[in-house]
Amino acid sequence: MRKSLIRPLIEGLKPYVPGEQVIVPGLVRLNTNENPYPPAPAVLDTVKAAVDGRLRRYPNPTADALRVKLAALHGCKKENILVGTGSDEVLELAVRAYVDALTDGADRSGCTVQYFTPSYSLYPVLAEMSGVVKNEVPLLPDFDIPSVEKLKADGVWDFNAALTFVTTPNAPTGQGYTTAALEKLCAAQKGVILLDEAYADFAEENAMSLAAKYPNVLVARTFSKAYCLCFQRVGYCVGSEELVGAMHKIRGSYNVNGLGQIAAEATLEHLDYYRANFERIKKTRSQTLEWLAGHGFRTRPSQTNFIFVKPPKVAAKRWYELYKEQNVLVRWWAQPDVTEYLRISIGSEEEMTRFREVTEAILAKI
Amino acid sequence: MRKSLIRPLIEGLKPYVPGEQVIVPGLVRLNTNENPYPPAPAVLDTVKAAVDGRLRRYPNPTADALRVKLAALHGCKKENILVGTGSDEVLELAVRAYVDALTDGADRSGCTVQYFTPSYSLYPVLAEMSGVVKNEVPLLPDFDIPSVEKLKADGVWDFNAALTFVTTPNAPTGQGYTTAALEKLCAAQKGVILLDEAYADFAEENAMSLAAKYPNVLVARTFSKAYCLCFQRVGYCVGSEELVGAMHKIRGSYNVNGLGQIAAEATLEHLDYYRANFERIKKTRSQTLEWLAGHGFRTRPSQTNFIFVKPPKVAAKRWYELYKEQNVLVRWWAQPDVTEYLRISIGSEEEMTRFREVTEAILAKI
Repeated sequence: MRKSLIRPLIEGLKPYVPGEQVIVPGLVRLNTNENPYPPAPAVLDTVKAAVDGRLRRYPNPTADALRVKLAALHGCKKENILVGTGSDEVLELAVRAYVDALTDGADRSGCTVQYFTPSYSLYPVLAEMSGVVKNEVPLLPDFDIPSVEKLKADGVWDFNAALTFVTTPNAPTGQGYTTAALEKLCAAQKGVILLDEAYADFAEENAMSLAAKYPNVLVARTFSKAYCLCFQRVGYCVGSEELVGAMHKIRGSYNVNGLGQIAAEATLEHLDYYRANFERIKKTRSQTLEWLAGHGFRTRPSQTNFIFVKPPKVAAKRWYELYKEQNVLVRWWAQPDVTEYLRISIGSEEEMTRFREVTEAILAKI
Repeated sequence: MRKSLIRPLIEGLKPYVPGEQVIVPGLVRLNTNENPYPPAPAVLDTVKAAVDGRLRRYPNPTADALRVKLAALHGCKKENILVGTGSDEVLELAVRAYVDALTDGADRSGCTVQYFTPSYSLYPVLAEMSGVVKNEVPLLPDFDIPSVEKLKADGVWDFNAALTFVTTPNAPTGQGYTTAALEKLCAAQKGVILLDEAYADFAEENAMSLAAKYPNVLVARTFSKAYCLCFQRVGYCVGSEELVGAMHKIRGSYNVNGLGQIAAEATLEHLDYYRANFERIKKTRSQTLEWLAGHGFRTRPSQTNFIFVKPPKVAAKRWYELYKEQNVLVRWWAQPDVTEYLRISIGSEEEMTRFREVTEAILAKI
């Protein structure tokens, strides 16, 4: 009999660490990539109006009305769409639907989750909690994705991996990948490839077209960041009926809360508001990058609602601490490949003014 | 290489089938055990007031404020509580945290999910999607739980099973189990035992005290049915820090939507409203049972917000169809052990008046 009440696999797990959620007055939170502006007023009105006796009812179990609207947006059928509790749930369902647990004699590729590093730090956590193989392959030194030819030549990438995650544009680097480069990878990949487009609305292009073109490709999106709905946990993915159908089989029967469904549906009726929001954030992004470059920061182009920069003079970890002392939260990781960088979410104009003031004060004293 | 993009385990799955969600005017839905009355007006007001710019923010990742309130209610620490997307997510996390996948040479008990039949039809689905062993043990002919002595004598029950689910009071039978009987089972069980108390507020007693007393016992509750919040998907469980901590490691980092957390917190401030609601439903329940018994139905006592009855003259399946023709939805299963029964949720007084009218009309024509 097993000694512990808990599975040994789970006992050894290190959980994913979300960005800190300290709440103190005047705090500037540039650490969780939230949208600095509220949802469209009409979206808030619609959600408010739905807070009534219907809360006693189960929500639509398959988020049908939302899936019909998303299908119209992406030019596919609702059967090509799965909605989850944020795109995080979509990623988790993908591991559970496509990747076999590693057992003696199992085909190793069929038990493999593969991704580039650095990318979204949830992938290794999801792999570990399912007891599958992780295949981590470094990005190029400039954080671009290696070509298929290079991946083949290096021999570490597994073209048969059951599931490959590609964050595009990437986090935490902010780097955009071209659809042309992604398509070559998708065409070469034998297993499922999930393009995790959480930040695609802030980018120059997206790869949604590949979900319709390749039966092994899923594209995941979220209402959290671009559409100001982190609070309500709504994400989705688009792909072939075969891939999407397998995820539907294992999701919770009522996995998406009702007010979240209503908020997401209303959002799709007001895309103009959000398109203006993206332009505003992109403008603040370029202003911030320009300002930081002028103050000794090594900057990189960003196609997301955050920037990834090397601060001057002292270590990035120290900068993170100095910002925190001044009530500005940014994100820093103790991982060798990104330890020299800070990830800074693009806040409102007001928040970024405060950020520049604090940066100047730090520069003056270090 | 594996032939399919999907895991063979998942390809063969039959998903859980929720109660039908037909929406037509005048439909009386007595098939999903929803509360027939709305949430407390003050709860609706609190949720409405929260629909503002905060929707752009991530919710509290650990539902801390709600867990503090629940801990006060149950006389434990917040570390003894995990909140999920309905109690369904809690059940799923339990399988993934405590039950090893079945592999060659594995200890079979460590790979076993065990439950009585009939009980909640989600348990086999959860077991199958995790590729673990199901040990299904029939209840007594009167739907009570067998004694530990009888379970030992019969030799089918696995006292070492990694995880045992007990729906208490039971669904779909509506049968209540005594805490004394449950305690004997918990004391005899070596693995984790999860007492699934989704309907406990409609019962004469509950077994929450066992969660504090036994390190292998979890008690799951939900805000869905008794607290009129199905729409917002909030459930939780109480147990030892060891058991609860393992589930926290594998849940989604922001698994519970923000407005759901706020609705559940507000609910706990207005328990008097809900206690009156339970009494009202229990009164309608006894009136309905008495009326049905007087019209040829074989009734059974219920400790839930539904009843489980054998209809007269024609098969239960035919009754289900006849009710549906008259826009009254009830629940019927094609399983041998319950095929003679209908499960009927207790609706509002108005809905149950309509239910009695339709029942009389059916009785007149069959």
